[in-house]
Amino acid sequence: MSHFKRRGRAPSLDPVAGNGLIDRRALLGQGIAVAGAMTAGAAGTLTGAAAEPVKDETWSLQFGSIMPAVQVPSRFEKDVVRTLSNPAGEFRNSHARTPHHLLSGTVTPNSLHFSINHSGVPDIDPAKHKLVIHGMVRQPLEFTLESLSRYPLVTRMAFVECAGNSAPMFSSEPMQVTAQAIHGLVSNSEWAGVPLSTLLDEAGIDRNAKWLIAEGADAQFLDRSIPVKKAYDDALVAIYQNGERLMPGNGYPMRLLVPGYQGNMNVKFLRRIKAIDQPAMTFFETKNYSQILPGGKTWRFHFLMEVKSFITHPSFGHTLKEPGYYAISGVAYSGTGRIAKVMVSADGGKSWGEAALQGPVQDKAFTRFTMPWRWDGQPAVLQSRAWDEAGNAQPLRAEFVAARGQTTKPLPTPLAFPNQHYNSITSWGIDSKGEIKHVYA
Amino acid sequence: MSHFKRRGRAPSLDPVAGNGLIDRRALLGQGIAVAGAMTAGAAGTLTGAAAEPVKDETWSLQFGSIMPAVQVPSRFEKDVVRTLSNPAGEFRNSHARTPHHLLSGTVTPNSLHFSINHSGVPDIDPAKHKLVIHGMVRQPLEFTLESLSRYPLVTRMAFVECAGNSAPMFSSEPMQVTAQAIHGLVSNSEWAGVPLSTLLDEAGIDRNAKWLIAEGADAQFLDRSIPVKKAYDDALVAIYQNGERLMPGNGYPMRLLVPGYQGNMNVKFLRRIKAIDQPAMTFFETKNYSQILPGGKTWRFHFLMEVKSFITHPSFGHTLKEPGYYAISGVAYSGTGRIAKVMVSADGGKSWGEAALQGPVQDKAFTRFTMPWRWDGQPAVLQSRAWDEAGNAQPLRAEFVAARGQTTKPLPTPLAFPNQHYNSITSWGIDSKGEIKHVYA
Repeated sequence: MSHFKRRGRAPSLDPVAGNGLIDRRALLGQGIAVAGAMTAGAAGTLTGAAAEPVKDETWSLQFGSIMPAVQVPSRFEKDVVRTLSNPAGEFRNSHARTPHHLLSGTVTPNSLHFSINHSGVPDIDPAKHKLVIHGMVRQPLEFTLESLSRYPLVTRMAFVECAGNSAPMFSSEPMQVTAQAIHGLVSNSEWAGVPLSTLLDEAGIDRNAKWLIAEGADAQFLDRSIPVKKAYDDALVAIYQNGERLMPGNGYPMRLLVPGYQGNMNVKFLRRIKAIDQPAMTFFETKNYSQILPGGKTWRFHFLMEVKSFITHPSFGHTLKEPGYYAISGVAYSGTGRIAKVMVSADGGKSWGEAALQGPVQDKAFTRFTMPWRWDGQPAVLQSRAWDEAGNAQPLRAEFVAARGQTTKPLPTPLAFPNQHYNSITSWGIDSKGEIKHVYA
Repeated sequence: MSHFKRRGRAPSLDPVAGNGLIDRRALLGQGIAVAGAMTAGAAGTLTGAAAEPVKDETWSLQFGSIMPAVQVPSRFEKDVVRTLSNPAGEFRNSHARTPHHLLSGTVTPNSLHFSINHSGVPDIDPAKHKLVIHGMVRQPLEFTLESLSRYPLVTRMAFVECAGNSAPMFSSEPMQVTAQAIHGLVSNSEWAGVPLSTLLDEAGIDRNAKWLIAEGADAQFLDRSIPVKKAYDDALVAIYQNGERLMPGNGYPMRLLVPGYQGNMNVKFLRRIKAIDQPAMTFFETKNYSQILPGGKTWRFHFLMEVKSFITHPSFGHTLKEPGYYAISGVAYSGTGRIAKVMVSADGGKSWGEAALQGPVQDKAFTRFTMPWRWDGQPAVLQSRAWDEAGNAQPLRAEFVAARGQTTKPLPTPLAFPNQHYNSITSWGIDSKGEIKHVYA
């Protein structure tokens, strides 16, 4: 018996699906050799000066830089930034997209959380900002950031996704852009806030009030109708994002969080909630923001962001330098609840293997999935497909197009795509050179 | 029956412990009135111009600022920064502390994660950095950031805490400083990395290798001995922190993560792991970094960061402006596993009530606890005490001092305190003006 260690029995590296997908339970670490081998004699001793295997680079030979009060990423990560639709701040809306193809895990750093603003980012003094709750209530109330901070806060992970996220997928031809450009209008954070139900109970909401109008303090006064039922399910008035106060582009100093509902219902810069007996039919509840179905009808309200997943690694913008082992990885989420399962295909959907989910799997939040894969150097098409705990399956592309309407030619800006709520599958085609294209499969 | 809504039956606001602690299950929202009441007529209509209850501040009347590629906190949050022990970058170690008294939730934003460096922050080019695994292995191997990225990554929350965190608590008199100054050398992040066991299996570690020496690429070549058992339990070579690449001050481009073990064992800028048959007795394993016990003996190794909690809100630096309802909130964590329970006292430990834990409660990670409290305007002493799933209780201060040694007068710098691993209770004394002092109780 060898004196070299192995954990347990020899694990299987047998494929579980076509084109080299390997069982997610496979124990790696058996010379699959992504690493470079060294000659045994070259490794030297840790403390000895002889046979130094690692070259002492500049940074090991000199005192480093001063630690800053607020640390920022390495200069070698300068490309890990949001992409901007309106970098000059013209008098129109602006989108900033999260670089999913360069991130991992499930938390979106606050610096990179997506943001959409229709009238720029307001510079709000929290000492002067108030939230008023009024309308069909026993006692109208006003809340400051300080008074909200005196309630026990609920802390929870939640994704926020713009209804128009993934709109480039409505293009009739696959656009050759990154996951950031396609799916960058969704992000995932740990939010802390006061349950909206607590505040409505404080004000004494009328039993006949079935809707709320939530209004922001930005120059647009963006407002949306929210069902009272959602307020009592799990809505928060959020005042922290990943531990710190909200980012200015994400609603500072307070925003509504309606987990799983389309992005702009999570009203930022929240300044008013009015209890009413019917929806208000605000700008974003009219035809311009509704789901257009085949035949020209629309759904009046389509709040829920449905089950979805996409592969971030490898994806457009990456290159596979050589055949061998890789991890396929991405995110899955559902506005309905927890992710139950993610299946991955490397042959464009002919066969599927179940991916490993990184726990804890949380309600209406990102779940990271991973799948080991042996690329043989031949063309492959990578796809992921998610199921949520309610049994909803992420639709195949053909199913989605049939149910939700035709794709169209791309228009000048993503917002100009005539449809929303794309939640079908994304396919990354890999050619024999390891180059990655966006394909429809 | 009133037509104003209430969820379920009238909840209890009865105290569960002295000085106004309220049951954590209490449903707030019954006119506990942290909010300001408005006259019912003043609330007006949401869309109408008349009877405007919210003054339109400047930011609501003008187009806001341009969205940046990397967003940063509001200018009104300029005090939410790390405090620096060596702001001029003198030729000695540097500490940057997390402002826990200004944060909430459980995630520490990357910008504010604590950092200690003994030779400044190295500016490492990830394309030139390598990790070598050698020593008692079948085949020495080297790994780049790119090759590590090809393994399936494990994603998990974990706190990292310096052994010297909370050292000001060894002072014979309570120091009048914030939770940041006392407890700022612990932070909590979502890390993603490759299991160290996978890499050791790749190299084929010898069965007789019981220890590893892990060495960093900083100018100090900081090195620590790590039990091989820990490597196979849950150690990672982490390459992402809260979704993005590691911060330069937290080990960019790769660090060892040994969840629950003292901070500098989580070797940053990781460049070498050597498998050996005995510990190396490096600088940080000698007397200067060991636990001094009553009688002058020391523990040879004391890796585990034991169960601990502290209250962040309210705490030193805050003021209670008026009697009334407040949330007491803080963080709890244990290097042994999950937090099982946190008890809170408002009367200096005479009576205790159980706090609510914000889920999911995760292994060796921060858990946020909250407790509603009605302050009657009289002096109070707030404390928290945590238990972990293994049954370990956070020690009372008298117990801790008896077991771990005498306190001493404060010395010029926190590092000069002669002891480490403080995990006893922190007490915040509130006087009748609402001012908060650090007290020993």
